[in-house]
Amino acid sequence: MSLLVVGTVAFDEIETALGKTGKILGGAATYVGLAASHLVSDIRMSAVVGGDFPQEYLDIFAERQLDISGIQVVPEEKSFFWSGRYHDNMNQRDTLTTDLNVLAGFNPVLPPGYRDSKYLMLGNLTPAIQRQVIEQMDRKPGLICMDTMNFWMDTAWDDLLSVVALVDVLAVNEEEARQLSGEYSLVRAARKIQSMGPEYVIVKRGEHGALLFYKDHKFYAPAMPLEAVTDPTGAGDSFAGGFMGYLAKVDDISFESMKNGLIYGAVMASFSVEKFGTKRLLEISSHDIQERLAEFVKLVAFSI
Amino acid sequence: MSLLVVGTVAFDEIETALGKTGKILGGAATYVGLAASHLVSDIRMSAVVGGDFPQEYLDIFAERQLDISGIQVVPEEKSFFWSGRYHDNMNQRDTLTTDLNVLAGFNPVLPPGYRDSKYLMLGNLTPAIQRQVIEQMDRKPGLICMDTMNFWMDTAWDDLLSVVALVDVLAVNEEEARQLSGEYSLVRAARKIQSMGPEYVIVKRGEHGALLFYKDHKFYAPAMPLEAVTDPTGAGDSFAGGFMGYLAKVDDISFESMKNGLIYGAVMASFSVEKFGTKRLLEISSHDIQERLAEFVKLVAFSI
Repeated sequence: MSLLVVGTVAFDEIETALGKTGKILGGAATYVGLAASHLVSDIRMSAVVGGDFPQEYLDIFAERQLDISGIQVVPEEKSFFWSGRYHDNMNQRDTLTTDLNVLAGFNPVLPPGYRDSKYLMLGNLTPAIQRQVIEQMDRKPGLICMDTMNFWMDTAWDDLLSVVALVDVLAVNEEEARQLSGEYSLVRAARKIQSMGPEYVIVKRGEHGALLFYKDHKFYAPAMPLEAVTDPTGAGDSFAGGFMGYLAKVDDISFESMKNGLIYGAVMASFSVEKFGTKRLLEISSHDIQERLAEFVKLVAFSI
Repeated sequence: MSLLVVGTVAFDEIETALGKTGKILGGAATYVGLAASHLVSDIRMSAVVGGDFPQEYLDIFAERQLDISGIQVVPEEKSFFWSGRYHDNMNQRDTLTTDLNVLAGFNPVLPPGYRDSKYLMLGNLTPAIQRQVIEQMDRKPGLICMDTMNFWMDTAWDDLLSVVALVDVLAVNEEEARQLSGEYSLVRAARKIQSMGPEYVIVKRGEHGALLFYKDHKFYAPAMPLEAVTDPTGAGDSFAGGFMGYLAKVDDISFESMKNGLIYGAVMASFSVEKFGTKRLLEISSHDIQERLAEFVKLVAFSI
């Protein structure tokens, strides 16, 4: 089934204890789209880039069969740029630069062929923009998943709530779930968020995995303990890509299917962090994915 | 099968955002023994208390069928006392008081009836004392599990390594695993620790669950997401009690059995934190345990 991915396509510059990249391909929609492309073929990208964005990066998307007709190029502007430095433990980072550039005026106009997409992933963007995307759809997608961040809770609360009310799945990290709900316990936070609209709440916990809440049900997808984490950038978006890519592939939004989606999300996130930027997502094969999947099955299997 | 538990039996005083206890029953061996007592009956306690330790607390152990003939009472001394205050998030705490008192001279002499114990849980104690316990056994127990802490890595490194070399399972938290191994990645840390002696390494991650490493195998037991955490004190020891209690019950130390042990550990830890001190461990029934166990099965079950 078709998956529409809306979010940033950008330049990142990343520094860790292991080294420093130059300007490389980054952005939430980039990671979501590339991760999902291993699972489903009909993916439509909506984003905006500047005239400085290399054709070679657009070609990467095209090679992975992503529809990039919805990536607007604004020749006179520069692409969104983020740079950050990770602490030695990889769990904390300092943002060094955030140049919105072309993103400041991003007003996505969906190509007509995008408007019937059955699955919609709204990457972290201004809530008003996220809502405009939903309003452009021909009909309500079968499933809408959104990401957001604390910044919008501080600066655009009402807008944010109005979008949250429209989506089926909210996927946020622990801190965001707590701020949005005003509850410290994740069980209570999820229940509060469910009352705001989303039937499903995913709490992403980084190296500790992710929790899915649905009605009174809970599901825990662990993160894979790895030999080494090279670059955590995009892990959460790769997770979202694996999750939505799987759901779009099987076209089944039952709770059982969502659980599998979380595992695929964890699989894609575990690859993403193994090399800088999108490198690992671009080189893995379906065989690699099946092997990692089998490792996940073993990681949590027990029989009491 | 018989389980010998060596560690502290003490007074705790605990303060959280929800309230403050007076002096209550605490200590690592207390939590281990009480948690294990729900799973296995032949439990032998080795500890030391002062003349101020109430008979009523010893009666609690006796009522749960724990053998307390190895709890030495030193009438002229006071019992070990710890007090601490938890931050609002319950993940950090400040120690307010640590009065070693009678523990300073603790030199456990195992009653003859303890020396054939098949399972041995060494709670966090001076490494030299832990070794003395092992040396008093008639023969090497079927399984020795030990806990320790950063303090001994800073102050008794050689002693610590000499005990680590003698045990089958080391159960420590993330920070301890990292300090002991000098490796940040838990996969690498576990491998390094395995090379020091223990065939099994358990990394306790608090609200994020626990990891078990054995050869190249990994197993992840989640923590149960709870409505509220009232008091995290003793969660790690309750975990150890559930783990060792289960192994002693089934008398099977295969990797498959260890996985189940971790789940029972997570079950007991999830109860322990629901009320102050040992209160919840003392009131749960086997029905409660079976229900919680079923929740854990559901928490991680998926079928891809």
